[in-house]
Amino acid sequence: MHNLQLSYFDIHGGRGEPIRLALAIGGVPFEDHRVKPADWPAYKPSTPFGAMPVLTVDGRAVSQSNSILRFVGKLSDLYPSDPLQALLCDEIMDAAEDANGLLAPTHVIKDPVELKAAREALAAGKLAAYVASLAGHLDPESGWFADGRMTVADLKVFTFTRYLRSGRIDHLPVDLVERVAPALIGHHDRVRQHPGVTKWYADHGVSY
Amino acid sequence: MHNLQLSYFDIHGGRGEPIRLALAIGGVPFEDHRVKPADWPAYKPSTPFGAMPVLTVDGRAVSQSNSILRFVGKLSDLYPSDPLQALLCDEIMDAAEDANGLLAPTHVIKDPVELKAAREALAAGKLAAYVASLAGHLDPESGWFADGRMTVADLKVFTFTRYLRSGRIDHLPVDLVERVAPALIGHHDRVRQHPGVTKWYADHGVSY
Repeated sequence: MHNLQLSYFDIHGGRGEPIRLALAIGGVPFEDHRVKPADWPAYKPSTPFGAMPVLTVDGRAVSQSNSILRFVGKLSDLYPSDPLQALLCDEIMDAAEDANGLLAPTHVIKDPVELKAAREALAAGKLAAYVASLAGHLDPESGWFADGRMTVADLKVFTFTRYLRSGRIDHLPVDLVERVAPALIGHHDRVRQHPGVTKWYADHGVSY
Repeated sequence: MHNLQLSYFDIHGGRGEPIRLALAIGGVPFEDHRVKPADWPAYKPSTPFGAMPVLTVDGRAVSQSNSILRFVGKLSDLYPSDPLQALLCDEIMDAAEDANGLLAPTHVIKDPVELKAAREALAAGKLAAYVASLAGHLDPESGWFADGRMTVADLKVFTFTRYLRSGRIDHLPVDLVERVAPALIGHHDRVRQHPGVTKWYADHGVSY
C-alpha cells in the first residue's frame, strides 16, 4: 500500500476530479490536498512540470493527469489488464484530454467579441466533432468505453461532459452534448449513479 | 499475435516514429503504411479523431499516439510491468507530448516577424524549462527514464530531441537542447546506438 497525496485545485471538476473519483470508488486511502488559488503561485515551481494534478507516491511527486489516472485506476481495479482493452481505455483518456485542449486557447482571449466568436466556432466545429466522436466510441452493448465495464476512461469523459454542460464556459451552448452526442448523457447518468460516485458527491455536498 | 498496420506520414520523426521504432526493436511484424501528404485529406475523415498515427489492430482502427505507443511497448517488452515504473514512463510520454504541443500554436503563424518572436520566446522560456525538466527526470544511475532500462518513454523523448536539433524549426536555436538539457544529448546517443534503432535507420537509409 502506497502513501498517496493528490494535490489539485479545490473544485469539483477538472483534471484532478476523475483521479479523486477513482481512488474513492476503489476505497484507496489518499490525502485530498486542495490547493487554494492564492497558494498556487508559490507551490507551482515545486511541481514536476509546473502543473497540477500532482500525485505524491511515498514522497515522490509525479505529474500528468492521465498518467496519474491510469496508475490509480490500477490500484482501484478500474483499468483493464488486457492490453487491447487498455489501449481502448487509453485512447479515450487521451481523446478527452485533446477535446478539453481545444478550449485552452479560448481561455486567454480577453476581447469579448473575439471570445464569443472563438467559442461559437468550436461549438459548431471541432469541439462538436470531437464530442460526437467520443460518443461514437461507446460500446453499444455495455454502454462503457472499454473492458465491458466502467473504467477510468468513463470517469474522465464523465467529468468532461459535466464541464461542457455546466454553463461555466461562456458562449458555449449548454445543450451542445445533448445535441451532438446524446449517448454521452446516458453515459453521464450511469457514472453519476455508480454507488462510489454517488457517495463521493454526497460526502462533498454536491447535488448536481 | 495481432495483425497490425501503422498509418502515419512518410517522415523519420513525429508522433509515429517512436511507435515504428518500438515495433522494430521488439521484432513485432507490422505494415508500415506511409500516407503521402496528397492522400491525407481523403484519408483523414476515416480516422477515429481526424489525426494520425492510427494503429489498425486486427481490422480495428485506434488513434492517440501515446496510447498506441504504450500498447506496442507491451508487445515489444519496452513498457514496465510494475505500476509505479509504468507511471514514471507514462509521465514522460505525456510530458514530451506537452512539450511538443508548446510549438503547435507557432506552426499556424504566417507573419514572419511574429513567428520569429514566438519561437524565440519559447526557446528562452516555456520550451526551455520543459526540456530541462525532462532531462531532470532521467535516472542518473541507469541513464533512462523508468524501469532502469530503455522503455517507450526513451523512444518518445529521443524523437523529440532529434526534432529540436534538426534545424527544421525556423528561429529555434539548434543548440537549445545542448544548452539547457545536455543530459538529453547523451540520452539521445544511447538510444541511437541501440542495435534495434541502429538497424532500423540503416535499413531506411538514415545516417544522422
